[in-house]
Order: sequence, then structure tokens, then C-alpha cells
Amino acid sequence: MAVLITGGAGFVSANLIQKFLDDHKVVIALDNFSRGLRENVDFASNNKNFHLIECDLSNYVDLELKLEAISDLHKIEEVWHLAANSDIPAGVKNMDVDLKDTFMTTFNILKWMRSKAIGVIYFASSSAVYGDHGSDMLTENTGPLLPISNYGAMKLASEAQISAATESFLTKATIFRFPNVVGVPATHGVILDFILKLIETPNKLVVLGDGTQFKSYLHVSELVNAMLLVRTKFFDQKLQVFNIGPENEDGIYVKTIAEEVVALVSPSAEIEFGKGNKGWIGDIPKFQYSIDKIKQLGWSPLLNSHQTVVKAILEIKQKYFK
Amino acid sequence: MAVLITGGAGFVSANLIQKFLDDHKVVIALDNFSRGLRENVDFASNNKNFHLIECDLSNYVDLELKLEAISDLHKIEEVWHLAANSDIPAGVKNMDVDLKDTFMTTFNILKWMRSKAIGVIYFASSSAVYGDHGSDMLTENTGPLLPISNYGAMKLASEAQISAATESFLTKATIFRFPNVVGVPATHGVILDFILKLIETPNKLVVLGDGTQFKSYLHVSELVNAMLLVRTKFFDQKLQVFNIGPENEDGIYVKTIAEEVVALVSPSAEIEFGKGNKGWIGDIPKFQYSIDKIKQLGWSPLLNSHQTVVKAILEIKQKYFK
Repeated sequence: MAVLITGGAGFVSANLIQKFLDDHKVVIALDNFSRGLRENVDFASNNKNFHLIECDLSNYVDLELKLEAISDLHKIEEVWHLAANSDIPAGVKNMDVDLKDTFMTTFNILKWMRSKAIGVIYFASSSAVYGDHGSDMLTENTGPLLPISNYGAMKLASEAQISAATESFLTKATIFRFPNVVGVPATHGVILDFILKLIETPNKLVVLGDGTQFKSYLHVSELVNAMLLVRTKFFDQKLQVFNIGPENEDGIYVKTIAEEVVALVSPSAEIEFGKGNKGWIGDIPKFQYSIDKIKQLGWSPLLNSHQTVVKAILEIKQKYFK
Repeated sequence: MAVLITGGAGFVSANLIQKFLDDHKVVIALDNFSRGLRENVDFASNNKNFHLIECDLSNYVDLELKLEAISDLHKIEEVWHLAANSDIPAGVKNMDVDLKDTFMTTFNILKWMRSKAIGVIYFASSSAVYGDHGSDMLTENTGPLLPISNYGAMKLASEAQISAATESFLTKATIFRFPNVVGVPATHGVILDFILKLIETPNKLVVLGDGTQFKSYLHVSELVNAMLLVRTKFFDQKLQVFNIGPENEDGIYVKTIAEEVVALVSPSAEIEFGKGNKGWIGDIPKFQYSIDKIKQLGWSPLLNSHQTVVKAILEIKQKYFK
């Protein structure tokens, strides 16, 4: 059997693909290489079970064409839909970005799955679907869902499509709501931003906002383990939604992240904070994320947000300072 | 000032337009006439404040072009976005229908509003965004939101876009979650279906499902009054969501609707029920809808679901049997 992974040259996908290949699965990875990089999956390039295909998923004709030969050769039994815009500010600036890269990729992959009678999907959603609930504890059943960025809106819109498709042709649909995920190969995020800034100006780190944003982080290796654990479980209902993240109420202030990055990368740098507790439009200052549901399956994060951030800083540093 | 109404030749729009014209507002109505009919707004055709423009809202270029001249002539201060697919089964059969007519119309109207700095939107959403919560009471804050039809999915996806736009450029956004709405000029729905069936076969009415579906109905005149009341109110928060419907827990069984239609339209007909309590994929058998929030503003439905259904049967009958 084969696994199809969209956004297959992205950060999370690279880590997921490694696991599937270790497990001797055939992996078909699609990417348009707008943000994903071939080098992210270089490790697999000589593996005969790995197929990397350049494809613009937002274009149904291209999708159908590029998958025609390979889907005759391998029976695709499940789709991991990880293709999406991951640049929140880009989507605020230009509404077309999340429409094309997040929403339409979901629409098209579902349409294609329906045409091929492929019934199993795993979807990388986001805590951004919740919008701003202040410091309320966010469970999978929390409402209302009023996202404050196009990024979150198109993730929620994708969830909605998958939910409807479960009533129609999907046999098993799993929606994972990701927290902030860090590790390598990092493509974006505050840690990478800070490190890149320090490479440019080693004596100064300018932080957007006043540093009081409270965020929770999970390491990509833990995220992948969580998803693969859920994959092995049986559920009565066809559609499942899981928050994945560090322990409830765990988190770290942006100020602390800045301090750790400076300490580990450029100890002589001064940190300069901005004003306000929102870094950009669509940035949620503080939220608490319940992972009680997935914990009941036997998964727990091994690291807290602070430990995760330190681990990621060291990994990203190693990449840029080797 | 002018009001822009999308889907302006549709069932609800026709009733809303009457009210705005009575109030001496300039009304610009857009419709692609795929389901909306010119005859629905014939009453306004000689009113100099009424402008009906054929426009494919799912095509941004067409939208921009068709609105260019008129939006120079009149200052559009608010948009009532009522354009959408209203045929749930059509959207189950062909995923492109709700994508194009519900989702893309929302995307494009928001994009256009942003380009013109128009900050006020009223959106016709649906109770279908909730999905199947059994007999739970549905409030505006109910979660999770897992719609079971593409119709509901694209309504939720539209809400999500509006929610994100409120963080970005909208100054006032109001989402109305409609119940089943009946009255004239009816374009679809169970009452119209039953009457049309009886016109074809006056001695027999075949009902999809076993008739135990419990549904709540509101008359279009009450819906319009509710929306116009909300419009006059001031709220601290830019984004408001309102359920509109008959009283909490009020409703009517499809069996009763069938019996009333037969009694009023073709008393000699026999009713034949199908099996199961779902008429079609995406049909939610039973739900309870809380209108406590809008009642706090001073609106209450005057008719219950049963009275509403009888009123609508008589109105639709008058149209077809005159």
C-alpha cells in the first residue's frame, strides 16, 4: 500500500515521511515547492519507496495528470493532507494566498479522492481555527469557531469540507489541530526569525510586540508520534478531531524565547521589544489548549514548551552555524 | 446611501428588498439568475431606487466590471450577502456547486469590499453549519462545528472568511444563521416539493424518509424583520452571530407538514412514507435551535413552526392554483 502526502517537501512532512519509509511504506509526496524544499526530503532521494512529484494541488487538472501514472502503479490507501500556506502575514496581505494554497488544495484533493474512491484522510489543521477565546481552555468541542486570520479561516473551511465529505464518501477522516510546531527543517516561525535576525545583526534582536505573548510549542518529532499513534487506533465514528500540543496550560512567553535564542546563539545581543501583545494581525496573544482527548489514547508530550524551544533553537542553530 | 444585495433575485432577498425600498433606500441587487428569478423582484422594476444587475459573483472580474459604474454613482455603505447555492442535494452530487455559488461568492464579495473600503456586511448563514448534534440545544457558541453537507461546509467556510476579515478590514459584520425559511416567492423546500408533487399526482404524495424528521420553520417576513431589527442595534464587538428561528424547542414533524399540505391542497391524496429518518445525505433529522440571544434584543417570532407552515402552504398554493 502507498501513502500520499501533500505538501510533501514541507517541515512536518519531511519528519513524517522519514517514519513511513522506516516502516517500509511506499510514499508519494506532492509539492509545488513554493515553500517546501527538495532539500527537506533529500534524505529519502535514494529510497526506491519514495516518489516526489512536483504538482500544483490548487489546479485540479495538474493534480489529476501528475497522479495518473503513479496511482495506477500503487494502491493509495490513505492521504495525509499537509499542503497549506504556512505564512500567516502573507495571507493577511493577500487573500488569494490562503484561498489557493490552503482551501483549494483541500477541495481538490477531496475531489480527487472521491474520483478514486480513496476513503482515508489525515488533515493538518490548526489551533488557529478557534480564533481568540482569551484564556479559555480550548477543547475539540469549543465554539464558536471564529478565526481571526485568513490562515485560520481557510483551515476551518478545510475542516468543514472534510466533515461534509465524511458524510458522503470518506470512510475515515482525522483532523489534527496543530499547535505551534518547531524543529528542523524549519521553514518559518519565531525561533527561526530570531536566529536569522541575529545572523544579520549579532548585537541586537528586535522583537515584534512586547514579548508578553504566551505560546505553547511542540517538537515536530512529538507531533509526528502523536499522529501515528492516532492512526493505529479504531474509532466508532468516522470523523475524529484531535488537538495536539504540549500539556494543558503549559507555554512560554515570547520574551523567554527571545532570551533563550540570544543566550544560545548570540549572548552579547541586546533585546529590543515593541509595543502591544499582538505581533501581527491574526496573531492570538494567549491561549490554553486542552490535549485531554489525545492523552486518553496513551500519548503524552515528553517535553514542555520551554524544553521544546531550547531543543529547536539548538537544532536550527546547528543547521545555520555548522 | 445604497445597499448592495447579492443573490438579489432570490427568495429572501425579494422580501428584504421590499423593506429597503419601502424605507426609500437605494438598492443594488446582483444575481446570476441561476436560481434567482427576475419575476421575484418584478414588483420593484419600476422603482427608480432599484437596480438589478446580472453578475456572476463567483467570477471576480465580472463582479468588478459590473459594479464599476454603479458604485461610482452611489455610495454603497453595506452589503447583504445572500447569494448562495440553496440546493443541498445538488451540492452533494457535485462538489463544485457550493464551492462556486456559496464559497467563492463570499470570497469575491469580501475581496471587492476590501478594495472599495466598504466595512459593513450582513451574511445569510445557516443552521447547517452546526452539523448533527442530536437533540442538543444549539446556541451561537455551540461547538464543534462539523457540517454534514457541502452546503453547510461552504456556509461555515464563508463565516470563517468573514470572521477573519473582521480582524482585518471589516468594521461591522453580522452573521445570521437561518433556520428553514418558508413563504413566497419559494424556490425550494419541502412544502414547495410536496405541492409540486401533488400538482403532478393529485391522489398520492410520496415522502422521502419516514416523516419523523423534526424541523423548525420560520416565515420569511419574520426573518426579514429579525435581521432589520439587529441592523438597528449597536454592539461593542465588530462581529456578531445570531441564530434566527422559531421559539426554542418549537418544531414540526415532516409527517405533519405532509398532512397539512394534503389537507389544504389535495385532500383526497394518500401519503406514502419512505424509510429512515434522513431524506437525503446532509439532511439533519432533528435539532433544537436556541434563539435566546436575538430575543434579548427584543425580537420574538409571532408564529410557531406549525402556523408558519400552514401560512406558507396557503401562500404557495395561491401562487400555483390561481
